[in-house]
Amino acid sequence: MPHININEDLPGIRALLAFRPETAEPIGVLANILLRDTDGLTPAERELIATHVSYLNDCSYCHHSHGEIACIYLDGNRELVQQVRTDYENAAISDKLKALLAVAAKVQQSGKAVTVEDIENAKQQGATDKDIHDTVLIAAAFCMFNRYVDGLAANTPTDMDSYPLRAKQVAENGYGSHVYKASQPMKEK
Amino acid sequence: MPHININEDLPGIRALLAFRPETAEPIGVLANILLRDTDGLTPAERELIATHVSYLNDCSYCHHSHGEIACIYLDGNRELVQQVRTDYENAAISDKLKALLAVAAKVQQSGKAVTVEDIENAKQQGATDKDIHDTVLIAAAFCMFNRYVDGLAANTPTDMDSYPLRAKQVAENGYGSHVYKASQPMKEK
Repeated sequence: MPHININEDLPGIRALLAFRPETAEPIGVLANILLRDTDGLTPAERELIATHVSYLNDCSYCHHSHGEIACIYLDGNRELVQQVRTDYENAAISDKLKALLAVAAKVQQSGKAVTVEDIENAKQQGATDKDIHDTVLIAAAFCMFNRYVDGLAANTPTDMDSYPLRAKQVAENGYGSHVYKASQPMKEK
Repeated sequence: MPHININEDLPGIRALLAFRPETAEPIGVLANILLRDTDGLTPAERELIATHVSYLNDCSYCHHSHGEIACIYLDGNRELVQQVRTDYENAAISDKLKALLAVAAKVQQSGKAVTVEDIENAKQQGATDKDIHDTVLIAAAFCMFNRYVDGLAANTPTDMDSYPLRAKQVAENGYGSHVYKASQPMKEK
């Protein structure tokens, strides 16, 4: 049960965004830029970073939600997404993305855990300063989103079929208030 | 030395915001609402939560910056701010703020660390749902800001006299691009 009185028909972060529209607005704008920008990292790579960090933070709602969005960008390759969650070093992804996931995993622990070697390795694999910036900020932002969702005990849908439906909505329309305002109820009425 | 090529004359997060103005915009809007809203928690209480979480995350730039802003709101009571960093349970603050700092400290560990008892205690001390929401989101947001600053190894000014000067600027003008654009260089030219 959520810790505060939110709309229990809305899943995960969507109920929190609806509770406080003032903060929902910049959160939606930030998510849109970090996860949908096509300059540098692809949206699929951005969602994989978000999924891996959310998995490390044990945030079930977020790693399932963003994993499903990544899955759409990856033509339904759910196995690849699952391997990025648990064993990205052996996944069929670029060496650049592996190096950036290593940076993201360090950020999940602490900003100070990122070493000069981690950054040098990412640069050697072709990461630009913007790629590194966005990786660190995506990882940091999911340390916020994951804590926001679980810190207020927002509802995590147990119906796994609902995640691909919401993922399709985000992949098509982006993040922002138009998404949670039009969000499907979590339960049948 | 910062991990990416940012303006080394700008301190801490300001150099990162200047590097990527697109993400700086929603980050500034979010910080303004979470730290300067006067409905419910006071700006001083909000900055104390930010300072405590930043201290727990060992982010020197953030806990000094926000501690100095809190200090301005508290008529220069730097001792109180220092005690909230390290020993808030015995500080001369309200029981409500102590209960909310306990929630914030749990969020710093993990969203899942927050218990029903932590929330019940805050409510018994007079915290509203909005106070609890804002506390969790401030704590979560500083888990982002702290990782953003240290994950990219942004410069942390060692001249401690520079923190009160920048704090005054924020206390007067708020967060946002107008602040980092007008930011004083970190070093004398």
